[in-house]
Amino acid sequence: MTLLFFSEVDRVDWWTGELNKAAPDIPVRAWPDVGDPADIRWALVWKPRHGLLASLPKLELILSMGAGVDHVFADPTLPAGVPVTRIVDPMMTAGITEYVLLHVLRYHRFLPVLEAQQRERVWKMRFDLHRLPAERRIGILGLGVMGADSAAKLAALGFAVAVWSRTEKTLPGVARFHGPAGLAPFLASTNILVCLLPLTPATEGILCAANFAHLPEGAFLINAGRGGHLVDDDLLAALDTGRIAHATLDVFHTEPLPVDHPFWAHQRITVTPHNAAISDPRSIVGQVIDNIRRLVAGRPLVNQVDTAQGY
Amino acid sequence: MTLLFFSEVDRVDWWTGELNKAAPDIPVRAWPDVGDPADIRWALVWKPRHGLLASLPKLELILSMGAGVDHVFADPTLPAGVPVTRIVDPMMTAGITEYVLLHVLRYHRFLPVLEAQQRERVWKMRFDLHRLPAERRIGILGLGVMGADSAAKLAALGFAVAVWSRTEKTLPGVARFHGPAGLAPFLASTNILVCLLPLTPATEGILCAANFAHLPEGAFLINAGRGGHLVDDDLLAALDTGRIAHATLDVFHTEPLPVDHPFWAHQRITVTPHNAAISDPRSIVGQVIDNIRRLVAGRPLVNQVDTAQGY
Repeated sequence: MTLLFFSEVDRVDWWTGELNKAAPDIPVRAWPDVGDPADIRWALVWKPRHGLLASLPKLELILSMGAGVDHVFADPTLPAGVPVTRIVDPMMTAGITEYVLLHVLRYHRFLPVLEAQQRERVWKMRFDLHRLPAERRIGILGLGVMGADSAAKLAALGFAVAVWSRTEKTLPGVARFHGPAGLAPFLASTNILVCLLPLTPATEGILCAANFAHLPEGAFLINAGRGGHLVDDDLLAALDTGRIAHATLDVFHTEPLPVDHPFWAHQRITVTPHNAAISDPRSIVGQVIDNIRRLVAGRPLVNQVDTAQGY
Repeated sequence: MTLLFFSEVDRVDWWTGELNKAAPDIPVRAWPDVGDPADIRWALVWKPRHGLLASLPKLELILSMGAGVDHVFADPTLPAGVPVTRIVDPMMTAGITEYVLLHVLRYHRFLPVLEAQQRERVWKMRFDLHRLPAERRIGILGLGVMGADSAAKLAALGFAVAVWSRTEKTLPGVARFHGPAGLAPFLASTNILVCLLPLTPATEGILCAANFAHLPEGAFLINAGRGGHLVDDDLLAALDTGRIAHATLDVFHTEPLPVDHPFWAHQRITVTPHNAAISDPRSIVGQVIDNIRRLVAGRPLVNQVDTAQGY
């Protein structure tokens, strides 16, 4: 009855320390020290190496360390029938909202333009770029907990906020669009596009040339969803034509972003190292332990993923 | 019975157009076309040239175009006994709050560090720099309408907010300090210092070495007050020692900032061209016209400045 921890990007000691503090009775092993694979009943994972989960014959529960589970479903050898849970964490939501607010405000207040002016020692008011927040239309793709929180905080600052989601949902004070038919009119009314979707077969590649074509000229893109939402070459082309003025990307097809990738040196792309929201064990281990105890007691799991929908 | 408009940085046509729309019965002249100085009863001004107001023998009211009036009182020939009003405008408050949120979040999320990493093509999580918002202490100097709005919006994002003001004031959910005795403990508990004070003899030079010495090592400074609050050389010295890690400045002793000023090229100073809040005539001319009509009707003025306090 042991929990296996797997992440190649997080601070292992921090996580195992917090897990041991929260549940001294639950033995924890950190990969690669798996020991006897048959001991492992539960696995808390971020981007598990393909085949790892399949190598655990007694596995009963897979717990994603993040809000997304695409990194779990990406494993073609994922054992069928093992339930998968994800994290819905107020701290991660707050982190995403900070990131969205920061980068929306950075574009709204055209900070990259002002930074260029500073490099040239140019003092110039840019009345041509100033907009009231009500004149700046922020379009959020995805209306989960994170999309809803970002939308509410942006609306509180006076921005004109619209949200697109797969299915019809309600959110007060925000324009709503949904489904494939709603995507084009949503994009046409968006100045700053924010992607907070889960990555599923239905959303993969949604940030592509055909959809960029609906955006007004000079739109901005903030992708804090997944690298798989974006067609990299289509973004480069949209930046070339001016359809997209500037993009901020936290997620990539391959992470770390390969050192020779054209995004690194692009003057109108801001790259951040998938740190919009950090999985903080102090906030998260409680949910992990709770779900393990629920499983052991035969009670329903919290934030279990619908395998058919992929989120 | 004519209104004189004076600004050398704003778009004159926009202002006179909005004034004429709002009050077709009030003649407006835009400097330098003053005409007969005896026609001018009211002057709407931003940084009036010294001597201009004294040259208007029938002047009855001076209306500052901004929230501050230091630019009016800076004129040694300012005619005594003429009432001075200032603007308290929701749009300007919103602009300041946008600016404060943008630059607080930029420091909170260490964007300059991440931008440096991008230039080097370095993908690196910075757990050493990540903080929960509750762990990031934002200290706001000044608790007028703008300071209160910034404090409330920052507190809503979970930041630990403290405010220092000259006199004792209350604000729910925010730590409060006041008066000279409160300044050192306020600074000692501040990671990101935001100046939104009015410039008066009591606040001039408040951002100086003696006060920086109370800040914790590696603090951040955002000055959206006035250039006169900052002792420029003391900031450069504090950046050299690391007492201050980075500063964002919207206001300067001389504006435009002289082309040879060391702030322009400093790697850890961000310069913006006094655009944190823009005086937008669409939002402001109503207050201007209202105060003129109040004066004519002998009714009390709105947002009249206390000449003794200087704000």
